Amino acid sequence: MEFRAEPLRLSTAEAGFDAAFRARLQWSADTDAEVEVRVSEIIADVRERGDAAVLDYTNRFDALGATSVAALELQQAEMKAAYEGLPPKQREALTSAAIRVRAYHEAQKKACGESWSYRDSDGTLLGQKVTPLDRVGIYVPGGKAAYPSSVLMNAIPAHVAGVGEIIMVVPTPRGEKNALVLAAAYIAGVSRAFTVGGAQAVAALAHGTQTIPRVDKITGPGNAYVASAKRRVFGQVGIDMIAGPSEILVLADGTTPADWVAMDLFSQAEHDELAQSILLCPDMDYIAKVQAEIDRLLPAMPRAEIIAKSLNGRGALIHTRSMEEACEISNRIAPEHLEIASRDPHRWEPLLRHAGAIFLGEFTSESLGDYCAGPNHVLPTSGTSRFSSPLGVYDFQKRSSLIEVSEAGARTLGAIAAELAYGEGLQAHARAAEMRIRP
Amino acid sequence: MEFRAEPLRLSTAEAGFDAAFRARLQWSADTDAEVEVRVSEIIADVRERGDAAVLDYTNRFDALGATSVAALELQQAEMKAAYEGLPPKQREALTSAAIRVRAYHEAQKKACGESWSYRDSDGTLLGQKVTPLDRVGIYVPGGKAAYPSSVLMNAIPAHVAGVGEIIMVVPTPRGEKNALVLAAAYIAGVSRAFTVGGAQAVAALAHGTQTIPRVDKITGPGNAYVASAKRRVFGQVGIDMIAGPSEILVLADGTTPADWVAMDLFSQAEHDELAQSILLCPDMDYIAKVQAEIDRLLPAMPRAEIIAKSLNGRGALIHTRSMEEACEISNRIAPEHLEIASRDPHRWEPLLRHAGAIFLGEFTSESLGDYCAGPNHVLPTSGTSRFSSPLGVYDFQKRSSLIEVSEAGARTLGAIAAELAYGEGLQAHARAAEMRIRP
Repeated sequence: MEFRAEPLRLSTAEAGFDAAFRARLQWSADTDAEVEVRVSEIIADVRERGDAAVLDYTNRFDALGATSVAALELQQAEMKAAYEGLPPKQREALTSAAIRVRAYHEAQKKACGESWSYRDSDGTLLGQKVTPLDRVGIYVPGGKAAYPSSVLMNAIPAHVAGVGEIIMVVPTPRGEKNALVLAAAYIAGVSRAFTVGGAQAVAALAHGTQTIPRVDKITGPGNAYVASAKRRVFGQVGIDMIAGPSEILVLADGTTPADWVAMDLFSQAEHDELAQSILLCPDMDYIAKVQAEIDRLLPAMPRAEIIAKSLNGRGALIHTRSMEEACEISNRIAPEHLEIASRDPHRWEPLLRHAGAIFLGEFTSESLGDYCAGPNHVLPTSGTSRFSSPLGVYDFQKRSSLIEVSEAGARTLGAIAAELAYGEGLQAHARAAEMRIRP
Repeated sequence: MEFRAEPLRLSTAEAGFDAAFRARLQWSADTDAEVEVRVSEIIADVRERGDAAVLDYTNRFDALGATSVAALELQQAEMKAAYEGLPPKQREALTSAAIRVRAYHEAQKKACGESWSYRDSDGTLLGQKVTPLDRVGIYVPGGKAAYPSSVLMNAIPAHVAGVGEIIMVVPTPRGEKNALVLAAAYIAGVSRAFTVGGAQAVAALAHGTQTIPRVDKITGPGNAYVASAKRRVFGQVGIDMIAGPSEILVLADGTTPADWVAMDLFSQAEHDELAQSILLCPDMDYIAKVQAEIDRLLPAMPRAEIIAKSLNGRGALIHTRSMEEACEISNRIAPEHLEIASRDPHRWEPLLRHAGAIFLGEFTSESLGDYCAGPNHVLPTSGTSRFSSPLGVYDFQKRSSLIEVSEAGARTLGAIAAELAYGEGLQAHARAAEMRIRP
């Protein structure tokens, strides 16, 4: 079967651009009421019955016949064996990727992970102590969406942060284990792993059961049940973002080979039909060349059907008046992945205020970042890079303020605090400060 | 009327301690279904009708007669006049507090706010760029809970981060403006302010109206309507934590004057009846002294009724076997405010893994931290300091990964990425990487 992919063509010079552009960005995050009800029941059941509930759901949903949750635990030896049993080329690629991801996150930790403090002239100490989380849970989807790269991207920053224990959960429908996922867990520093998935896994991590320990934070992607469960347990534990569909935005000045850019748009589109690929370019001829490469390259793609659906339904090739205008539109989108396909990417980078990750220059395909460049591939989607950041070491650390007021400091600070506390009608606050003022 | 405050007495040596302790920590964050429905209607209405809806709700709920949202905007001149009109002592206290809070957050920004990057041996650049948010909204409650210190604690870190525009919203029921709140906004760097509150203010900030600009993040405390609205707009904009009741935990070795500790427990309890004050101490005689001071000091407190309700309903004086055990219990609680009432606080501080803020030594009353020591008073409550941090400069910044792969880098990285992408069944990812490998 032949598929045809023709992203919507827009031009900023046309009347009606704004409305058409906004319509293309629209995406409904509405949740399914039935999923919500089901998930709330599963969580309540796991809280009440613990292991027994986890075992029931796992045997039922994943068609297993386990007799205990303990039997669902993956042993380190099994993960090690999976790693050692990989084809050498795959094993080397996975190892190289892990080394690079680790090096980047070590640099990230150094850049912002240290405790600090200073003393005032009166001897008062102020600062902040940075500590890793005690225990985190990493959710890894099973089946088709089981990406070993996601195991690396979630577990390595936690490991680099110094998290005490990293618990992985991964469903294994019909008992099928993904050797690459197990191998990735082995080299990423996962402490324990359970072949449990869905809302039951999230509930077990959030509240703890007899066998699965309670964690402080849960990260990692999942289906609608997992996303809903994560939302519900938020507050009880920390969570990472609930991701929307993946997106790429390519800013092109027309100097990057058009087939490279076409393939980059495909690489986003092949994730799923809701994924969004957008090209912004001031050169109309170049846009036509990219469309021609889309036509030429699509038939050979194994995932041509998904790519075509994604590009036809959500893709766009947008002609802009200038690169400057393209940058401004990119800021309105605040994309997850932002490629600057230009010979002079550093000219445009300072104009780009919002993006999960910025890929500079023609050699930097987004897919290099997905696997092995080093930076994290868990990035803010759906415009949330306006206010949030890639998953990082900082997500597995927390801070505590440190305050040690000296006797002299208690005098000056006490007078200020008391004055303001009385102004707010909080007399015990004022008295607590005043009592420490010694004559 | 006489009130009596008798926090629950527990001892870790007693059988049943664990259950009694857990029961005392219990607190239901259940939301009111009626509030939820009302809030979702208000948000939908503000999205649809913009200014007109904001004006209707504000006039109705706050008993105003404004004719436009523009008329609800506070002018800088009015905020400046409020500041200049304060009694000199109050103005000086507010100014000193702002200077100290700003100095602390400047130090915090230096400690972790810089962009960074490095180059691999093959010329590939990796890094992260740190940028301030474009525009944030600060919610300030009106009426009794209008705390000028909260204005400082929310606006100053945003201002230090370099946020382009800081929009404050504060309801003014019956038109009553709080001069201290206006003055605090003036010195904290608030750009614009509107006398609008409730879910309608949150909706306006999240989605924008004709007059109120859309922001990227909303922080600040509020009632159940505000909290529910913040939860609902999360994703559209960033939000800070939804705070639970305030808590203090005092670790005492018996060397701090017992009346100081009693007053510190009061200072937490006076916030509201759900606030929680806990003392952990290995010295039974000292616990009795603190109870005696509670009895002696309570009658003189203007907020004695709230203090008594809070201490009776949620307070606890816990006898521990040792200071070490007290530290371990503190880690289980993960308190918002943690006082180490000891002559040797640095002996215990390293044992304390989870807390919003740690107050070291007898002179450091929690109330000094609330107003003017410098660190932020917006802290994680209800055990969430296990995984989250005080409000800070970092909450008003976001990061974008930077990747610039060199031609040589594209060769090595391309081979790794392609191998892994084929392993995950993502052929377009693999091809995009391979195309960049030049012979």
